[in-house]
Amino acid sequence: MSAPVDDAVVPPGLSAEDFGKALRAFAAALGEGAVLRAGEATEQVREFRDPYSFPGWDDHWPAAVVQPGSVEEVQAVVRIARQYRVPLWTTSMGKNNAYGGPAPRVRGSVVVSMRRMNRVLEVNEELAYAVVEPGVSFFDLCAELQRRASRLWASIPDLGWGSVVGNTLDHGVGYLPGGNHADTQCGLEVVLASGEVVRTGMGAMDGNPAWHAHRRGFGPAVDSLFMQSNFGIVTKMGKWLTPRPEVYAPVEVHAPREEDLEAIIDTIRPLLLDGTVTNVPLIGTAVGAASVTRPRAQWYSGDGPLPAEFYARAAAELGLGYWNLRLALYGPADIVDAQLARLRAAYAAGVPGAWLTARTIAGEDVSEETVTIHPERVQAGVPGLALLDSLQWWGGIGGHLDFSPVAPLAGRHARTLVNILRPEIERAGLDFWPGTILTPRSFYMVSPLLYDTTNEAQVKAAYDVYRRLVKLTGEAGYGLYRGHIDFMDDIAAQYGWNDHAMLRLYQTLKDALDPDGILSPGKQGIWPRSMREG
Amino acid sequence: MSAPVDDAVVPPGLSAEDFGKALRAFAAALGEGAVLRAGEATEQVREFRDPYSFPGWDDHWPAAVVQPGSVEEVQAVVRIARQYRVPLWTTSMGKNNAYGGPAPRVRGSVVVSMRRMNRVLEVNEELAYAVVEPGVSFFDLCAELQRRASRLWASIPDLGWGSVVGNTLDHGVGYLPGGNHADTQCGLEVVLASGEVVRTGMGAMDGNPAWHAHRRGFGPAVDSLFMQSNFGIVTKMGKWLTPRPEVYAPVEVHAPREEDLEAIIDTIRPLLLDGTVTNVPLIGTAVGAASVTRPRAQWYSGDGPLPAEFYARAAAELGLGYWNLRLALYGPADIVDAQLARLRAAYAAGVPGAWLTARTIAGEDVSEETVTIHPERVQAGVPGLALLDSLQWWGGIGGHLDFSPVAPLAGRHARTLVNILRPEIERAGLDFWPGTILTPRSFYMVSPLLYDTTNEAQVKAAYDVYRRLVKLTGEAGYGLYRGHIDFMDDIAAQYGWNDHAMLRLYQTLKDALDPDGILSPGKQGIWPRSMREG
Repeated sequence: MSAPVDDAVVPPGLSAEDFGKALRAFAAALGEGAVLRAGEATEQVREFRDPYSFPGWDDHWPAAVVQPGSVEEVQAVVRIARQYRVPLWTTSMGKNNAYGGPAPRVRGSVVVSMRRMNRVLEVNEELAYAVVEPGVSFFDLCAELQRRASRLWASIPDLGWGSVVGNTLDHGVGYLPGGNHADTQCGLEVVLASGEVVRTGMGAMDGNPAWHAHRRGFGPAVDSLFMQSNFGIVTKMGKWLTPRPEVYAPVEVHAPREEDLEAIIDTIRPLLLDGTVTNVPLIGTAVGAASVTRPRAQWYSGDGPLPAEFYARAAAELGLGYWNLRLALYGPADIVDAQLARLRAAYAAGVPGAWLTARTIAGEDVSEETVTIHPERVQAGVPGLALLDSLQWWGGIGGHLDFSPVAPLAGRHARTLVNILRPEIERAGLDFWPGTILTPRSFYMVSPLLYDTTNEAQVKAAYDVYRRLVKLTGEAGYGLYRGHIDFMDDIAAQYGWNDHAMLRLYQTLKDALDPDGILSPGKQGIWPRSMREG
Repeated sequence: MSAPVDDAVVPPGLSAEDFGKALRAFAAALGEGAVLRAGEATEQVREFRDPYSFPGWDDHWPAAVVQPGSVEEVQAVVRIARQYRVPLWTTSMGKNNAYGGPAPRVRGSVVVSMRRMNRVLEVNEELAYAVVEPGVSFFDLCAELQRRASRLWASIPDLGWGSVVGNTLDHGVGYLPGGNHADTQCGLEVVLASGEVVRTGMGAMDGNPAWHAHRRGFGPAVDSLFMQSNFGIVTKMGKWLTPRPEVYAPVEVHAPREEDLEAIIDTIRPLLLDGTVTNVPLIGTAVGAASVTRPRAQWYSGDGPLPAEFYARAAAELGLGYWNLRLALYGPADIVDAQLARLRAAYAAGVPGAWLTARTIAGEDVSEETVTIHPERVQAGVPGLALLDSLQWWGGIGGHLDFSPVAPLAGRHARTLVNILRPEIERAGLDFWPGTILTPRSFYMVSPLLYDTTNEAQVKAAYDVYRRLVKLTGEAGYGLYRGHIDFMDDIAAQYGWNDHAMLRLYQTLKDALDPDGILSPGKQGIWPRSMREG
């Protein structure tokens, strides 16, 4: 963390001379404007650091950024990188914020930014899918659907600026039906470290019209190998979409007491398992809701963790409970009404004192004008950036790490995790602010550790507690589904069954698919042989 | 196809002496009774040939069968096989019928039968899953659910005798919600060719309770690598189950005319995409329905393909249409009623002349006594063997190959495939009998080529037309999802995009994971290096 971040750096193991040759080769293949070198185009390269780290830290400073504009240019980048042994780090839109943004795991890597490959290649109304390049953001995809007057909705995450491909490849989640994005991806095109291009599933066959309609071909499906990995660079992806429903009904369940958490979860589980609720619900807290209204200091001026008084005030002012579940129903009016009645009955019985609010709107009437608040928008495929307002929480320039363990969908597991996370996070001087994302059998307790990025001590406190929580949750048997680049080795170490047999399998695959170790070394704790030895 | 099938054979490339040593090593590790050698235990080994091939053919005759009883014994088998370079061929229950049954791709392989590993290790009522070993059949699993008075239903295929694991690993399909079994598998334990054991997803972490509740861990998900592949031997699998619904409503739609096929498909597509229909529907034909009633000769005694007269008679006698769609609805009574009304309205408008039949029954009342016909049973998780009656069709000892191309879920693709398949199959003297299995965006046109296995000319005609159809459908852009062992190389060749880039990727993975090439060589057209060269 010593050198100034605008310094020219070279990739580890490379001489300045060889790196210069590699840069000239990149420029020859992609055009001068497509290659940005730290120390020369510093302001542009600066965009590729982690925006949520302390500005003075440079552990993840890239040596350069290359911006291919086509599959062929991606192939050229890979071949040049192999020739000169240049470690690459692929990023799509670069909005992997809270997990490192676009910054590479290894300082001095060359970032491969896919932003220029930004075409929506197909929208198939009949079969409800789109085909996108990595530089297509959720904003872009939704704008294209609107431009075409499409009847399809896309599942989107809370922030619309990220890449559809990048989100999916990092096991990201959105909130419509099909919101477990890795499960509703269908058909990839991938450039391998060899420079070869493969198409997965039915796409492995010339002219097969089922590439984006059927998830498997003949032989093992390899799509998931290119997610949360460093085994290839994805250049095209099919994403399944959802037909616009006759009726859209956003629902909220507000539970007044901290101790209601278990019951909220145990009440919805059967309704997720039996298909009454088909989207991806989220349980938020009063802290999260308060954070987008005004800074923390205007809510609470005392020392130490947020007290009961804060929760009471926030709940009263915002009309919320301590825990607030959001979900949505989609379908014909009579079916949505029947599902809503079941939800009401379940929560009336399951969580005494909770209250449910809902409204229904015709799917064709949903727009930015008619659906104005974030929870209603994000479950209807209307992307936004509203949650960025939470960055004001501590003042200064806000940032956060996301600590995201997974557990089976049972209230007792949520309680166990709360009991591990809250005291540690509060002891670090931060607030506990989980957004708990639900699938029918599991949940992700995504806990943003908000801080002021200009306050080095506070950023360091967040990093320190993150590392400690990786250890503590791991000891309790809970693994993280995703992680910040600084902690990927720690998280990988959680997965230690049978003397880390899975990590060793990953290494075997890595060495076979990328023998020179050029693709995103260290991602998810997977290192090439050359960086493992010694 | 020359040697008598009960001959003692040795694996290719092995001396009789070395093979004898290997067999003694297997017996030492597993016990004498767990090793069956062709030429000695011939009657027992005979069970491991393809039951649907002509009895005189011996292309797939195994040299021996080993039957491990535990994960440790599977590891021992793999290590011994590596030591002696013995090609193995893994089979679970061995009921991969129509695709080769338990028979190995390579004559002289040692079959690893997993039948002895037959425990249902867990049934989780709260999270709706079961954990099974490969020797658990659908009959076994459903019996165990019944024994526990479980409220969970398992998605099952048409025949109940097959392995839950084996079906899933071969991308098999069942007919309940979650019927795309590879998509509702969660968490594997796998013995690799190295003899090491890995657990996938959250199972890669010691004591993680989400192993069978959450489908991904940290890093790329490798589960699908062990499906339709020869990269490992699966020893445990989590299978997601479906809660017993309040109401179960099996539905049939009968369409009178051959030319209704497109409309049947195009009418249901929106109802699958919007979640009105959540199970896996199937479109059958009058031939299929007739085949389970009595032999072909009692339906039609003329020469040549089945004429219009046959279809008219079968439809009238059986109360069916030319095409017959089956599906089922699951849920609370009011919702099922609303869904049924939508189905009725859709087919009244979409397929003039079609008629819909349905009944509703409380989920808790469903049993073998109350649900007696195959379509109603198989969509409610009540396994059976009723469809085996179709083997009487040609007389003698019936068998079949299944020719199973996939296409996008649109009527025009089904028409194109019918136009390719029917004339070729009828020209071969066989009947065209597709069972078209529907997913929201694709279909499998599973076309059994029935024959009398004792009639060598007829079996050969089926094999010949199968090979020809692989070529013809491939040229038209449609790939097979699964295939008989004799045609795996032909089918793999269909997937030829970019000079067979996918096959070369499979070979790279194969060489890395199984450098000695001992695991199921040739499966899905994936050969180890030693068998590719020369």
